[in-house]
Amino acid sequence: MTNSKTDYNKLLSGIVQELKPYFGQGQQADYIPELANVDPNKFGISLAFLDGRTFTYGDSEERFSIQSISKVFTTAAAFGLIGKKLWERVDIEPSGTPFNSLLQLEQEQGIPRNPFINAGALVVTDVLMSNLNDPYADMLNFVRELSGCSSIEYNQVVVDSELDTAYRNAALAYYLKSFGNLDNHPIEVLKLYIHYCSIEMSCTELAQAFHLFARRNRLDCNIPDLTPSQLKRLNALMQTCGFYDESGEFSFLVGLPGKSGVGGGIAAVYPDFYSVAVWSPRLNEKGNSILGMKALELLTSKSGLSIF
Amino acid sequence: MTNSKTDYNKLLSGIVQELKPYFGQGQQADYIPELANVDPNKFGISLAFLDGRTFTYGDSEERFSIQSISKVFTTAAAFGLIGKKLWERVDIEPSGTPFNSLLQLEQEQGIPRNPFINAGALVVTDVLMSNLNDPYADMLNFVRELSGCSSIEYNQVVVDSELDTAYRNAALAYYLKSFGNLDNHPIEVLKLYIHYCSIEMSCTELAQAFHLFARRNRLDCNIPDLTPSQLKRLNALMQTCGFYDESGEFSFLVGLPGKSGVGGGIAAVYPDFYSVAVWSPRLNEKGNSILGMKALELLTSKSGLSIF
Amino acid sequence: MTNSKTDYNKLLSGIVQELKPYFGQGQQADYIPELANVDPNKFGISLAFLDGRTFTYGDSEERFSIQSISKVFTTAAAFGLIGKKLWERVDIEPSGTPFNSLLQLEQEQGIPRNPFINAGALVVTDVLMSNLNDPYADMLNFVRELSGCSSIEYNQVVVDSELDTAYRNAALAYYLKSFGNLDNHPIEVLKLYIHYCSIEMSCTELAQAFHLFARRNRLDCNIPDLTPSQLKRLNALMQTCGFYDESGEFSFLVGLPGKSGVGGGIAAVYPDFYSVAVWSPRLNEKGNSILGMKALELLTSKSGLSIF
Amino acid sequence: MTNSKTDYNKLLSGIVQELKPYFGQGQQADYIPELANVDPNKFGISLAFLDGRTFTYGDSEERFSIQSISKVFTTAAAFGLIGKKLWERVDIEPSGTPFNSLLQLEQEQGIPRNPFINAGALVVTDVLMSNLNDPYADMLNFVRELSGCSSIEYNQVVVDSELDTAYRNAALAYYLKSFGNLDNHPIEVLKLYIHYCSIEMSCTELAQAFHLFARRNRLDCNIPDLTPSQLKRLNALMQTCGFYDESGEFSFLVGLPGKSGVGGGIAAVYPDFYSVAVWSPRLNEKGNSILGMKALELLTSKSGLSIF
Repeated sequence: MTNSKTDYNKLLSGIVQELKPYFGQGQQADYIPELANVDPNKFGISLAFLDGRTFTYGDSEERFSIQSISKVFTTAAAFGLIGKKLWERVDIEPSGTPFNSLLQLEQEQGIPRNPFINAGALVVTDVLMSNLNDPYADMLNFVRELSGCSSIEYNQVVVDSELDTAYRNAALAYYLKSFGNLDNHPIEVLKLYIHYCSIEMSCTELAQAFHLFARRNRLDCNIPDLTPSQLKRLNALMQTCGFYDESGEFSFLVGLPGKSGVGGGIAAVYPDFYSVAVWSPRLNEKGNSILGMKALELLTSKSGLSIF
Repeated sequence: MTNSKTDYNKLLSGIVQELKPYFGQGQQADYIPELANVDPNKFGISLAFLDGRTFTYGDSEERFSIQSISKVFTTAAAFGLIGKKLWERVDIEPSGTPFNSLLQLEQEQGIPRNPFINAGALVVTDVLMSNLNDPYADMLNFVRELSGCSSIEYNQVVVDSELDTAYRNAALAYYLKSFGNLDNHPIEVLKLYIHYCSIEMSCTELAQAFHLFARRNRLDCNIPDLTPSQLKRLNALMQTCGFYDESGEFSFLVGLPGKSGVGGGIAAVYPDFYSVAVWSPRLNEKGNSILGMKALELLTSKSGLSIF
Repeated sequence: MTNSKTDYNKLLSGIVQELKPYFGQGQQADYIPELANVDPNKFGISLAFLDGRTFTYGDSEERFSIQSISKVFTTAAAFGLIGKKLWERVDIEPSGTPFNSLLQLEQEQGIPRNPFINAGALVVTDVLMSNLNDPYADMLNFVRELSGCSSIEYNQVVVDSELDTAYRNAALAYYLKSFGNLDNHPIEVLKLYIHYCSIEMSCTELAQAFHLFARRNRLDCNIPDLTPSQLKRLNALMQTCGFYDESGEFSFLVGLPGKSGVGGGIAAVYPDFYSVAVWSPRLNEKGNSILGMKALELLTSKSGLSIF
Repeated sequence: MTNSKTDYNKLLSGIVQELKPYFGQGQQADYIPELANVDPNKFGISLAFLDGRTFTYGDSEERFSIQSISKVFTTAAAFGLIGKKLWERVDIEPSGTPFNSLLQLEQEQGIPRNPFINAGALVVTDVLMSNLNDPYADMLNFVRELSGCSSIEYNQVVVDSELDTAYRNAALAYYLKSFGNLDNHPIEVLKLYIHYCSIEMSCTELAQAFHLFARRNRLDCNIPDLTPSQLKRLNALMQTCGFYDESGEFSFLVGLPGKSGVGGGIAAVYPDFYSVAVWSPRLNEKGNSILGMKALELLTSKSGLSIF
């Protein structure tokens, strides 16, 4: 299906041409002061085939705040650590409401709809806090191993900036605690969660790290011992829940499992073939990167490489 | 209308006779460990006419945790301090949902439905924190002056007990902060709010303090300068919002403005005539005292003294 | 309390003077084409003391569509006919959401929150359809007897106009039926309900009819055999639920049990003293008459005649 | 990926062996009397590769009521007829709430979340009613052409049975009409919708018809002129929305785009390779066939043939 003769460099250039009318649309996230300082016109993409070929364009090597994309790494780690028991504390259904809604949490008595909304990610973080020796160092090492870059770090300035204003996430954490769905102190869980979100990676590093989900092979990393079946299921989760209340739209237009972050990044995979990461800070009203969504839509429609 | 020849002592005894079948029904609040230590079979009532006659029965002089009844005092104080501006930050409509629901707060973008649900009371507490010199001492003095008892105190054991488990209220406070509807730190507001709830008063002290609302006369107290019109409106608020999602039921059966607390207390007023307080720790599933509700229903139907 | 020396003609004139700045504000209901044909600048008020004195101003003798005010008459009739069993099919709590919301009905499994929202009134209408010999003629006669005017009629043009566009009410009726809370066919119930809403009365006729609730005396009418206690409870219901999601506001500002209709009418009572009806077609965004609300607020604050 | 040497007959037998413990679990739909008459212990499966190989087991040739599986055919037809304009009237996001919820419809002002919940399917049906010459005959012919079986029919007994009790769907239809999102009369739309649901097909006929989505080739049928891109998007829709509020679960466990019906049928596709239909009337509490879900989970995990 993937044609090794396709000129992917040319394909990427063609995509960027078609993106031109969309440049400058949307706003970057400004609720975290530090994120508002990023140049909103950055754009990078990195397409990494499992056979080793990699194609990039633009600011593909510049690191940015991966934010909610970290939820894929933490969910993978927690799933590896405690297995199916994870799904007793967090569901696997699309949310139908914005990523930081308390409504659904109330209706469903403290069980978040999925691990990719904030409430779910806080529960996942609580699992890691209880099951890792050093939840700060161990998660960072996991991401470093996946991407092959030992210089990946938390951004302490982003952490501090976010801790000052994370009122809604603090509300979510306390609310989960009130339902008995956090073992640790809400503010401690929140602090760890914000660290995970603050991890900085480049498109190329992200694409490399997502090979895990494209390959679905057992990991060599120590921490999370993930089976191919588990990795398939994480792909399914990304497909149905990766883009908040725009997950249907992304699935409809792009047709790949993926995950977005308010830093403007999106990572996605075409199982058995490639992973791809794109970055552009300007977001639509649902909190997803406008150019990122469009670039991936063009990539799958032009290459014919989608799962459907 | 009020018959000075009615033998109210006999009326109260008669009510207690009719309450017998309901003794032992319901559970006392146990989410605050300290409240669970109270003898659940306590029962007291104090009926205080504005003309000075007072009739009591049972444990009417024993102090208990007034809990949410404190919301009437704090709302009165805040209304006196900042006037109509209070209603820009908290609405005056019945809630239709349980007292600690986050749902409605989300739908209404951080404006609590009324000052007698927890979210609303946190906003009121925030107003007091910003507008009183010493929000701890000043509120206590206000309640002392109203009831004429200078020995009324916060119960520090209840405060400590509640602070440890107030996860849902902490969630509400952070959530309000996320909407910009708290000026002070959420945990500081919560701490003050919990102190207010921990005030201990007897039925007779409560009935005396509620003369303010039955008389609707300007206060001599320094702090909140309440007009008769403001006091009328506080009565109207108690009528429509005083019993969480059972406010209609109370209005229907009892026909008096009033306020309940999970400590098992209820205070109510018949404007121009009397105020009444009743205490019994066993609650129905909506969080209101079973014997208290029933006693007041019998009082108004037997005496014919209700506002409707 | 009511001063027989007060010059109520002068009081009403004074109120109208103060209303001047509000004339022309708001829009009349236009979802029923026939209602949109009424002159929006009509204004009438009729104040009827139980001692027989009546004071009127403006278009007080002109009939208008009473619309939801009919819910008070139908609820009274149904309560008289089947007693407390009525409350097994419709609750008595304020709704917290707009009058035609399906949300709450879903959350509460087909039990409307109170008889004064449309869903509740449909259930009440179903009760009348099952318990009256001739639900069309009998209800009309009941209203005629209450007001002493045998010429009161359904307005067939309004009925036809409304039947064509009553999609949301039809949805409510079918939804209630799906929960088993209608005995009769949804469209038949809807048709009867729309007839009740189409009744036309003047302010003076409405005020006279509401003497029932101000007097709280057993009726001489044949159909609904209402006790004083039941009438008190209907007053309590009007107090907490009479103005949709503005019931708290009305209670707060006016302090009387009452009921509004989208025809621009409001009827209210001060138990033991008077009933009052006001009519002005321009509505606020909650569906209540702007001048009507304001006129009653001024009436109670100027005369000091409110229940609180 | 698909191994032509795999013995799929043996694979199916193996699956049925593993299903044994689940036989007898769950209840068949009984809200439609006619559906309750079906033998609940029926089980059939039909696996049809695009290369022509077909493998079946059990009652694979017996026709059953396809019910909501018809929504895939009607959505495909409407998408073909009016293209992207369809998505202005119905969204493409997972619902997060049960299939017949009115809640979300109220929150989203009459735009159903997706075409596979009842509200969305009613809008789709309205589109067909307005855009087909003979919406009854044309849709039936479309399904007949897809499956190659000209004897496929509506079941008039099921239609009559459902029309008598379709109160909730009638409520949905009237509610959509109240938002202006139906062009035709609600009851007419409902009647047509119920006909579509009453279509009866066997597993083998369904699997054959779903080749359309597995092949994603332009149709020879006259009516809906579907492009490969449109067919891909219908697959994406099935993936995220095909199983009501269990869509995440199905995606997670099975990893194929598919659609279930309360008749106990499920049809699914593995693009480029096969389509599969399974039938067993006993449903879980979410309304999906228990054996059907489990059979497909086993099929993809044993064969390794899923999209993730």
